[in-house]
Amino acid sequence: MSSSTVDPADPVFRLHQGGKLAVASTVPLTSREDLSLAYTPGVARVCAAIAAEPRLADDYTWAGHTVAVVTDGSAVLGLGNIGPHAALPVMEGKAVLFKQFGGVDAVPICLNTQDVDEIVAAVRALAPSFGGINLEDISAPRCFEVERRLDAALDIPVFHDDQHGTAIVVLAALRNAAVLLSRKLGDLRVVISGAGAAGVAVTKMLVAGGVHPEQVVVCDSRGIIGPHREGLTSAKAELAELTNGDGRWGDVAAALRGADVLIGVSGGQIPEAAVAGMAPGGIVFALANPTPEVQPEVAARHVAVVATGRSDHPNQINNVLAFPGVFRGALDARATRVTDGMKVAAADAIAGVVADSLTPEAIVPSPLDPRVAPAVAEAVAEAARRDGVTR
Amino acid sequence: MSSSTVDPADPVFRLHQGGKLAVASTVPLTSREDLSLAYTPGVARVCAAIAAEPRLADDYTWAGHTVAVVTDGSAVLGLGNIGPHAALPVMEGKAVLFKQFGGVDAVPICLNTQDVDEIVAAVRALAPSFGGINLEDISAPRCFEVERRLDAALDIPVFHDDQHGTAIVVLAALRNAAVLLSRKLGDLRVVISGAGAAGVAVTKMLVAGGVHPEQVVVCDSRGIIGPHREGLTSAKAELAELTNGDGRWGDVAAALRGADVLIGVSGGQIPEAAVAGMAPGGIVFALANPTPEVQPEVAARHVAVVATGRSDHPNQINNVLAFPGVFRGALDARATRVTDGMKVAAADAIAGVVADSLTPEAIVPSPLDPRVAPAVAEAVAEAARRDGVTR
Repeated sequence: MSSSTVDPADPVFRLHQGGKLAVASTVPLTSREDLSLAYTPGVARVCAAIAAEPRLADDYTWAGHTVAVVTDGSAVLGLGNIGPHAALPVMEGKAVLFKQFGGVDAVPICLNTQDVDEIVAAVRALAPSFGGINLEDISAPRCFEVERRLDAALDIPVFHDDQHGTAIVVLAALRNAAVLLSRKLGDLRVVISGAGAAGVAVTKMLVAGGVHPEQVVVCDSRGIIGPHREGLTSAKAELAELTNGDGRWGDVAAALRGADVLIGVSGGQIPEAAVAGMAPGGIVFALANPTPEVQPEVAARHVAVVATGRSDHPNQINNVLAFPGVFRGALDARATRVTDGMKVAAADAIAGVVADSLTPEAIVPSPLDPRVAPAVAEAVAEAARRDGVTR
Repeated sequence: MSSSTVDPADPVFRLHQGGKLAVASTVPLTSREDLSLAYTPGVARVCAAIAAEPRLADDYTWAGHTVAVVTDGSAVLGLGNIGPHAALPVMEGKAVLFKQFGGVDAVPICLNTQDVDEIVAAVRALAPSFGGINLEDISAPRCFEVERRLDAALDIPVFHDDQHGTAIVVLAALRNAAVLLSRKLGDLRVVISGAGAAGVAVTKMLVAGGVHPEQVVVCDSRGIIGPHREGLTSAKAELAELTNGDGRWGDVAAALRGADVLIGVSGGQIPEAAVAGMAPGGIVFALANPTPEVQPEVAARHVAVVATGRSDHPNQINNVLAFPGVFRGALDARATRVTDGMKVAAADAIAGVVADSLTPEAIVPSPLDPRVAPAVAEAVAEAARRDGVTR
């Protein structure tokens, strides 16, 4: 076995020996009586009841509290397209976080295909075993179509975390930053640098949360997105339609001139001079990991509030604040999908946890704050019932 | 919620509240340091190592000890085609047994399709997450093609338990019954009543284990299978070719005349007069559940050894004696498939556990005997290495 890349003394490899998950039985099985209840012949009565009334599966199987964490390994962390086997440690980690924070049982499903039709067919096929589908690390623009088609086909929640998890936490952080600076979301001029999965979802989430779409400018690697751009993907064409009310064009520096907020979800570097051109008292979320679009120390020279995706800086925008509570709430409410209302409710709940103790260095809770997931779950379940998307 | 079929006082339904499984984390996750090892940024090092050397997934993910229990819900217990949701309690029970007896982590995957191409495509797609595929309760003849195609396509063990689990335990039981009666397998005339998944697999397993194919006669609901029969499925045509060396024809009573062994895997009833026509000192395994093909008390009037599939009679032929140890051994050896040699080794190991204490009422161990799975695992792993099917 070639192991040039494995350092057995590395605590990361020691921790990962045998993986990070196990399946546990929640029922006893030591006597013939146990066997006759949990398995044959007793189990046949439960099967027959579910066959007559499929919704009983919510109560009498683990599907009611279990989600599949599905990836095709095409956009894993900063590693890119490393395939399904190499993606598995990340999906196991995600499952650990689901359990730890949301009490949600999660099973990694790493698919051996990157074809949209095949991904959709495979997830539709395995859906009866689960109460929800968390899509993960599927590259744009395929991720949009995969999510859209699965959301339409399935009667359980489908949620692409790289899009909506990030977007929910960004909205939560922006709400608290605005409160801190006595600004209204509807008055802010926002620049989003990056038009991949996260950029698209952040844009839509901010608009759903109260930012005026005309006041948002989205940039990709070629600059500002608007009607002047040709050959856009359908996701970007939608952004060109929705955002950039002033018809701006040019590079990210042009976009940032006079802007109140910069949200970096691209990984591309943004020069200090561009940040310096923002309006006074601004906000920068530089979320690329491990290298933010602009270093937080540099951004802090020019704006009032700075957040990153890194655990070694204040204000970590981390999806783990969102996904465990979102699925816990969706499962508790027997939601059939995740609506914009549920996502906005999740953002409000995250923001609310630290609302009484806001400082420029604490606009979001710590990723380890145990108050977050229960608050998010309750808000999401309530929103699901309000939006009428429960079974 | 309609619940006319649910009796909340029934201990089976009480036990099944919330299902029977959970996912557990095997690593700590309470500090930022934990998070940076089990998740980002540390996990990226494990991902990169697996991307460079895919076999490292055996050691550094849970796939090395985890199997998928896959069904399409088409042939569940005696309930028949009840679909994927209603099949889930059985698959959860199977997963509990995998864990309890084999220490194997098993995940139920109930597929929302009964199309062979779609089943094969879905299982191929999800295979990278698992170290083995246990097919379950898929009706014949589709189960044969599903298994054959998956076995050819995947480099992990694929095992249809309804076929091979049953066949392994039948071979184990027949070996011990033959020892008890001082008979040789090669001398026995065997009638198999039933040519579905189990009947086909039992036939092949007995032949692999030493029974002469010419001395086997297989019956389906229309009688003895042989070259005289027209319109046979390909599985039955293969049996017609392989078995029935004397060219017998007629019903099961004709088949049983002078036979030494009856193995019932059909559910169809066999009249006492037919059993009475067997040779003296015979063997009857009447495995249909809950109603054996011939009642054991009735069979006992005419033969020397009787076994059933029921837990309330001696000599229970129960798959749980085979599948946990088969997969434990296959996973331990990093086997790429399950060979006939591994199956015969499993049967020998099961038989061996009670070899020193054989009686007509104890030709197989109890399904709860904790010695069985480790013995089977060791024998299967050794056979895998002998057969050269390890990674």
